[in-house]
Amino acid sequence: MSARRYAILAPGLFATRSAKTAHGVIAYSSDATVAVIDPDHAGTRVRDAVPYLASDAPIVANVAAALHFEPNALLVGVAPPGGALPKAWRAAILEAIGARLEIVSGLHQFLAEDPEFAAAAAASGTRIWDVRTVPPPRLFTGAGYDVAPRVVLTVGSDCAVGKMTASLELTRAAGERGVRARFAATGQTGIMIAGSGTAIDRVISDFASGAAEELVLANASDADLLFVEGQGGINHPAFAPVTLALLYGSVPDALVLVHLATRTHVEDYGTPLLSLPKLVATYEALCATVKPARVAGIALNTYGLTPAEAQFEIARAAEDTGLPCDDVVRNGPHDLYDAMAPAFAHKTRPVI
Amino acid sequence: MSARRYAILAPGLFATRSAKTAHGVIAYSSDATVAVIDPDHAGTRVRDAVPYLASDAPIVANVAAALHFEPNALLVGVAPPGGALPKAWRAAILEAIGARLEIVSGLHQFLAEDPEFAAAAAASGTRIWDVRTVPPPRLFTGAGYDVAPRVVLTVGSDCAVGKMTASLELTRAAGERGVRARFAATGQTGIMIAGSGTAIDRVISDFASGAAEELVLANASDADLLFVEGQGGINHPAFAPVTLALLYGSVPDALVLVHLATRTHVEDYGTPLLSLPKLVATYEALCATVKPARVAGIALNTYGLTPAEAQFEIARAAEDTGLPCDDVVRNGPHDLYDAMAPAFAHKTRPVI
Repeated sequence: MSARRYAILAPGLFATRSAKTAHGVIAYSSDATVAVIDPDHAGTRVRDAVPYLASDAPIVANVAAALHFEPNALLVGVAPPGGALPKAWRAAILEAIGARLEIVSGLHQFLAEDPEFAAAAAASGTRIWDVRTVPPPRLFTGAGYDVAPRVVLTVGSDCAVGKMTASLELTRAAGERGVRARFAATGQTGIMIAGSGTAIDRVISDFASGAAEELVLANASDADLLFVEGQGGINHPAFAPVTLALLYGSVPDALVLVHLATRTHVEDYGTPLLSLPKLVATYEALCATVKPARVAGIALNTYGLTPAEAQFEIARAAEDTGLPCDDVVRNGPHDLYDAMAPAFAHKTRPVI
Repeated sequence: MSARRYAILAPGLFATRSAKTAHGVIAYSSDATVAVIDPDHAGTRVRDAVPYLASDAPIVANVAAALHFEPNALLVGVAPPGGALPKAWRAAILEAIGARLEIVSGLHQFLAEDPEFAAAAAASGTRIWDVRTVPPPRLFTGAGYDVAPRVVLTVGSDCAVGKMTASLELTRAAGERGVRARFAATGQTGIMIAGSGTAIDRVISDFASGAAEELVLANASDADLLFVEGQGGINHPAFAPVTLALLYGSVPDALVLVHLATRTHVEDYGTPLLSLPKLVATYEALCATVKPARVAGIALNTYGLTPAEAQFEIARAAEDTGLPCDDVVRNGPHDLYDAMAPAFAHKTRPVI
C-alpha cells in the first residue's frame, strides 16, 4: 500500500509510558504522523507533550479534528487502562472506519474480531490490521541455518531497555555504510515501524522458535545483514521463554547486548539483573549448544544520565566485558557499528 | 466424576509410538482401560500388542465391540497420521457420543470446537474433554514463591526421555514413605493420567511461565512435595522455551535430571545433547539467577539396555556428576527417592 499518514489515538495517555508504541512510531517509522488525538493536550504539538520527540505534529481533541490533517490510517498504539476498550475509544474507532481510515492496532484484543468493527470495516471497505496477529503454528525446522544474510540478534538485560531502538539504529548505520541491511520486527511497535513482523510473545510456546525462524526466512532475500529485534531477558521470570525462542529460532550469527545503564532489577519483578559479563557468558553459552554466536558489542542505553555519567558508564561496560560499547542514540550508531562490523562478517554453523 | 472406564481409540496405531499417550494411560492412570479399539490387533490383548504393558484388556475392532466391556469414556490418545481426523475416526467418536461416553482427547485439534461433535454431545448430554485446552492468559506474578510444598521439577536432556514417568514414580515412592506427594501434569498424557493439569506447550509464550506458576498454586494445598512434570530440554532448538517457562514459572526448590542413556542427539533435530555434568550446570546456573534450585539426582532411563549395561551406565552417570542416579522403572523409585529425599527437605528463596 502507499505510505501511511497516521492519526494516533491516545486519549489521556499520549504523554505517558502507556503510549510508548506511539512514541516509537513517531520516532522511527517512515510513515508520517499527521496528528495525535489526546484531549488532555489538544492545541499543543507532539514535542510539547513529549520533549524527546522531534515532531511538530498537532495534538487534537478528537477524530473529527484529526481528519483536517488528511490521515489515511488510525493507529491505536496505547493499551487502554484495565484492558477493556472504553466506550469513547470505540466511538473514535468507528468514526475513523466511517472516514475510511485503515485501523492499525497493537492491542491484545483483536479489533478485526469485534463484530461491530468488522461490519463497519466491511461496509466502508477499509482494512483493520491487528499487528499482534501471528501466523499459523509452525515448528522450528532448521531451514534457517541456511539463510544467506548474517543474522544479528539483540539480546537484553531486561524488557524495555532499548533492543528495538538499537536494532533500528544499527540497521540504519549499516545501510549508510552501503550494506544491504534489514530490520526484522518481533514486537508490536517494531512491527508498526517496519510494516511487517511477528509478535513472538503471542505465539504458542511450542511454535515460538519456529515463528522466529519463519521471520528470518521471510526477510532473507536481498539482504546481507538482518537485524532481529530481541525480546525480554534471559533471567526474566515471565518473559525469558520468548528470549530463548528468539535466541535459538532466529539462528543468529552474532549478538548485540543491550542494557539500560540505570536499570538494576527486572522491571515489575525485582529479580536482580545479571552483570554484563555474566549476560555475555550466559547468552553465548546457550547459543554454543545449538548454533554458536558471540556478543559483538554492547549498546548501552544511558537515558537519564549526564554526558559525563554516560561516558563513564560506557567506558566501564567496555572495560568490564572487553567489548565495544556505545550509546547508539546519544552518540549515534556509526562508531559502534564500525567496531562490531568485523564480527558481523561471517556466518556460523549449527553444531549438528 | 466417578472413575473413568476407558475404551481407547487407536485404529491401526496401538502398537506404534504414535500411541504413547494410550500406553502412558494404561501404565499409570488410576482409571481403568476396559478395551482398546484397533482392528489390526482385534482378538488379542494389550500385553500381546505391547509387551511392556502388563494389561489383559481386550483389543477389539470397533466401538460397538468395545461397548460390551462397559466403558464410560472414549480416549483419543493418538495423533491421526497427517493431522486431520480421518472419516472412520469421526464415525467412531460420534458412535461413542451416541452411547453417552465421555470423549477425552489429546489432539491439537479441539473436538469440542467441532460443530458436529459439539451438537452430538449436547444432544446426548455427554462431555468432551480436550485435555490440551489451556486456561486464560495469566502473567507470572511471583505468588508461587510462597507456596507451602517443596516443588520438584524434572528437567531433561531432550523430549521423550522419561520425565513424566520419573515424576510419577517418585510421587508414588514419596507417598509410600508417608509424604503427602502430588504430581502436577504439564503434557497431554500426564494430564489424562492425573485428571488435570496444563499443557504448557500450548500456552502463548508471554504467559507460559505464568501458566506454570498457576499450576503450582492450584496443586499447593494438602501437599508436602509437588512433583512437576518437565518438558523438552534446555538446548532443544524448538522446545527449549517451554523448558525455561517451567524452570522459572514452576518455582522449583529442587530439580531431578532425566536422561535416556541411549540418546545422544536431540530427536528430529540432530543437535548434540549436553553431557550430564553440563546439563546439571546449565539448569542450576539459570535457576540461580531467579530462584536457586539444585539437581538432587538423576533418573536415568536405561530402556533397551541389558541389565549389565544399565548398571554400568547408572554407575557412570553417578560418578560423572557426583549425584545419586538410578533407573526408577527398572529398579523401582525407592532407592533414588531415599537418596534424594534430604535435598527435597527445604524450600529455597527467590533472589529478589
